[in-house]
Amino acid sequence: MSDKKKKKPQKLKARLPRGFVDRSAADIRATEEMTAKIKAVYENYGFDPVETPLFEYTDALGKFLPDQDRPNEGVFSLTDDDEQWMSLRYDLTAPLARHVAENFNDIQLPYRTYRAGYVFRNEKPGPGRFRQFMQFDADVVGAPHVRTDADMCMLMADTMQALGLDGQYVIRVNNRKVLDGVLEAIGLNGAEDALKRLTVLRAVDKLDKFGVEGVKLLLGEGRKDESGDFTKGAGLTSEEIEKFEFIFACFEGRTAAFYTEDPRRPSYRVPSEEDIENAERAREGIYSMPLGVIRAAFQTFGGDADATVSGFEGYNELLEMATLFRAAGYESRIKIDPSVVRGLEYYTGPVYEAELTFDVTNEKGEKVVFGSVGGGGRYDGLVSRFMGQPVPATGFSIGVSRLMTALKNLGKLGASEIIEPVLVTVMDGDAEAMGRYQKMTQELRAAGIRAEMYQGNWKKFGNQLKYADRRGCPIAIIQGGDERSQGVVQIKDLIEGKRLSGEIEDNAEWREARVAQETVPEGDLVAKVRAMLDAQAEDRQRAG
Amino acid sequence: MSDKKKKKPQKLKARLPRGFVDRSAADIRATEEMTAKIKAVYENYGFDPVETPLFEYTDALGKFLPDQDRPNEGVFSLTDDDEQWMSLRYDLTAPLARHVAENFNDIQLPYRTYRAGYVFRNEKPGPGRFRQFMQFDADVVGAPHVRTDADMCMLMADTMQALGLDGQYVIRVNNRKVLDGVLEAIGLNGAEDALKRLTVLRAVDKLDKFGVEGVKLLLGEGRKDESGDFTKGAGLTSEEIEKFEFIFACFEGRTAAFYTEDPRRPSYRVPSEEDIENAERAREGIYSMPLGVIRAAFQTFGGDADATVSGFEGYNELLEMATLFRAAGYESRIKIDPSVVRGLEYYTGPVYEAELTFDVTNEKGEKVVFGSVGGGGRYDGLVSRFMGQPVPATGFSIGVSRLMTALKNLGKLGASEIIEPVLVTVMDGDAEAMGRYQKMTQELRAAGIRAEMYQGNWKKFGNQLKYADRRGCPIAIIQGGDERSQGVVQIKDLIEGKRLSGEIEDNAEWREARVAQETVPEGDLVAKVRAMLDAQAEDRQRAG
Repeated sequence: MSDKKKKKPQKLKARLPRGFVDRSAADIRATEEMTAKIKAVYENYGFDPVETPLFEYTDALGKFLPDQDRPNEGVFSLTDDDEQWMSLRYDLTAPLARHVAENFNDIQLPYRTYRAGYVFRNEKPGPGRFRQFMQFDADVVGAPHVRTDADMCMLMADTMQALGLDGQYVIRVNNRKVLDGVLEAIGLNGAEDALKRLTVLRAVDKLDKFGVEGVKLLLGEGRKDESGDFTKGAGLTSEEIEKFEFIFACFEGRTAAFYTEDPRRPSYRVPSEEDIENAERAREGIYSMPLGVIRAAFQTFGGDADATVSGFEGYNELLEMATLFRAAGYESRIKIDPSVVRGLEYYTGPVYEAELTFDVTNEKGEKVVFGSVGGGGRYDGLVSRFMGQPVPATGFSIGVSRLMTALKNLGKLGASEIIEPVLVTVMDGDAEAMGRYQKMTQELRAAGIRAEMYQGNWKKFGNQLKYADRRGCPIAIIQGGDERSQGVVQIKDLIEGKRLSGEIEDNAEWREARVAQETVPEGDLVAKVRAMLDAQAEDRQRAG
Repeated sequence: MSDKKKKKPQKLKARLPRGFVDRSAADIRATEEMTAKIKAVYENYGFDPVETPLFEYTDALGKFLPDQDRPNEGVFSLTDDDEQWMSLRYDLTAPLARHVAENFNDIQLPYRTYRAGYVFRNEKPGPGRFRQFMQFDADVVGAPHVRTDADMCMLMADTMQALGLDGQYVIRVNNRKVLDGVLEAIGLNGAEDALKRLTVLRAVDKLDKFGVEGVKLLLGEGRKDESGDFTKGAGLTSEEIEKFEFIFACFEGRTAAFYTEDPRRPSYRVPSEEDIENAERAREGIYSMPLGVIRAAFQTFGGDADATVSGFEGYNELLEMATLFRAAGYESRIKIDPSVVRGLEYYTGPVYEAELTFDVTNEKGEKVVFGSVGGGGRYDGLVSRFMGQPVPATGFSIGVSRLMTALKNLGKLGASEIIEPVLVTVMDGDAEAMGRYQKMTQELRAAGIRAEMYQGNWKKFGNQLKYADRRGCPIAIIQGGDERSQGVVQIKDLIEGKRLSGEIEDNAEWREARVAQETVPEGDLVAKVRAMLDAQAEDRQRAG
């Protein structure tokens, strides 16, 4: 037994590392169709392509240099020959920041660019979660004002529109300064609070899913869901939680419930005449944010001056953006929403995301909103890390495969019809016959008709027809010795043949039926094949 | 001094690992234009896309599992969480072999696929040599016959044709079995001779560069070039070298010089009647290979039976391919050439490459033939490594950036004209004015006109015009307070303006000149801009 084992060399196992997948023709074609549409909108907005390689020095990605052997926490890293750590990019933003800093003197600011490319996450893969996936980004570097963020939101909206998603998406916008203002007001702005801050932001992120009451639980002790699973909360006090609640209420224009003349709670005092006037003006915008009230709120939240400035500034910036959305007619497609968080630590101002609003059934069989297919925000600190001078920037990323899944589900892709090749079958193996088959094939190709000569073992003709069938070939060309001597070819309409012989299941039987077959002079081959393909296309169109 | 240093935090340096580069908009657009043309030809030949991820298990790539820390010999490798080595692919062929083996039961053979993608080499970079570059491959798996290789050669030829290279390329074809036959005949077929075999193949590869005499030197003691640099040879004996020489002579139909009736040199005996008859028949093909002579040569080279079979089989296969090229009318574009080697060890039969035949000037200022832009061959062993059953395959790879360099030099790319965006300038910063600028921008975009609103610091109007100039914007839209109150906009033709003020070098001066500027009602904005862009396009066309 062990001798036998020794004799047989161990066969190599064909498998991929987990979290990586091959892509099928259908997937690749759908992606190309989709990215071409996205690209057209980005170009229309005045963006130009620029690309970076897949590797960057690890420090340029914003990860700390490792003191252990492999700094594979989230990224794929290795050391180069010169002992410097390099990593595969985990997004397209950090490499862009490096690119801009490295070429700062040659770049004309504001710099409007886009790029599609693979990014890598060294994480545990799961259903729909891969370790290599494609993003499609657009960024503007050197544009300090939030009107650029507004332009990006409109770009996202028009991209969704161009993909045929009219009425099925919303661009949701928030400003990190508002949340940062509250976090500062409750003293959660220190480096030592990073983890707690994350829990708070994650809780806020759930506003549209769990509502205000659910978020309040997550900000406090924790929340038990229907199945009984308990999620531990951020542990904020009820007073701290109320500040968040008030901010949400501000966004929704239902602050009255908080008003009081109790001097111990000055943040919720009854608004002044001026406050109400400002609120009215804000309400003329696309959402109802009582500007005066929120200013007063931040002023009296009990935080320091920075918190007040940050929170109010963020609110004010959202108002400015809303004015632009309204002026350009985008108010029904872009919504201000206080629950938009976007996870990344590096955002410094507006954050925005594209959400698909239709229902899908999840793996548990529940109906859920499809959700986010991309987003981004302002990251004024990323380029400056290299520069020692402020370089403002804003941009967003679309998750290509997630968006493609959505579009495929909706039947919005596959417009570009793929016709499988005409198959020139092989009946004789002598050099002269082979030369003729090859010549026919080349004539069809030269006429722009997708064609191939059968490349397998031609002696089993059944295999050739099976191949044509599985492949979905529309037409087969057949020339045996008899036809050759007469200078003719048989042209078999495989689509029509399949239709006519719907009940015939056996290949041999089907061949015998000789349905939908014509014999034409060799010289008419191309014209006849073209006519047959045109007729098939017409049939398809008629069938819808 | 040292205190000062401490205070200033160390600035991160923006740089890329060596051998990696960013890609400009022009490069990306040229690549897209080129790959679209290549793809169309591959599709026309009945190929479908399929893609694999960038990582594979290292053993699947055919590298041995490492016993040292980092097996970075030529590839980028790292260990996964489960301690298995994985590597970035160094070509697109090995991953395809893994893909086919892994999905063997679902794949309909022959399997005709193509793919473009990045590959990685962990090597010392040099001028034009990068550690990440793109290949564009086509392969057929499950097709055992060399007529598939012939089809691949025609595919390469038609790809070059589609790229506008008519008359400027040749597809060169050889068969590794011929060379292997000679190597076996001289006893160089053992595993222990791998290095020497490589030196021999490298020498043969230089046939078109150094001629027969040069190659003979490289096969023997070595060769000194004009500059005096000496290249050590393979150290073959003169008798061994003569066998190669004879094979080259066979391909060129000039074998008579070797003929002898000396019984001690039976390989070069005077050909029989039958030999000459066969030679004549071969000569009717597109090249003159005396089939009988070469069969006799291999039979009497003194090698074993395998060598005879291999060498003769290879020769015979080339004849079969040549017959197909002739039948399909490709004989002037595809040439049989005994010096084609293609470096990779895994080729088992026909090898072929696309060579661009025009001269370019190299970095030393010498005129040289541009040379190979891609190639491939039959690799019957790659898939079977996983399978325990033979799975024949053949395919080739195009070096995308090298081919693009060639096409750019020839002016064959850039047909798709890129029009830079119309710039909507910003004259006033109040919310109402901003809303109007944004609305104009969106109106232009919605009409399919590439447009952007200025996103930098608008207060310095000079910056806006400088930006438009550097960016190459064709038109600028200007609306100040006066225009706004009258409901009009100024439309500045920046191309015409530049032409009219050719002698004006200063931006301020140019602005003063107020050339090529029109004032139109707001409602006519889109129509007027479109008319101006059309006029500019007409001008460009007239200028050629």
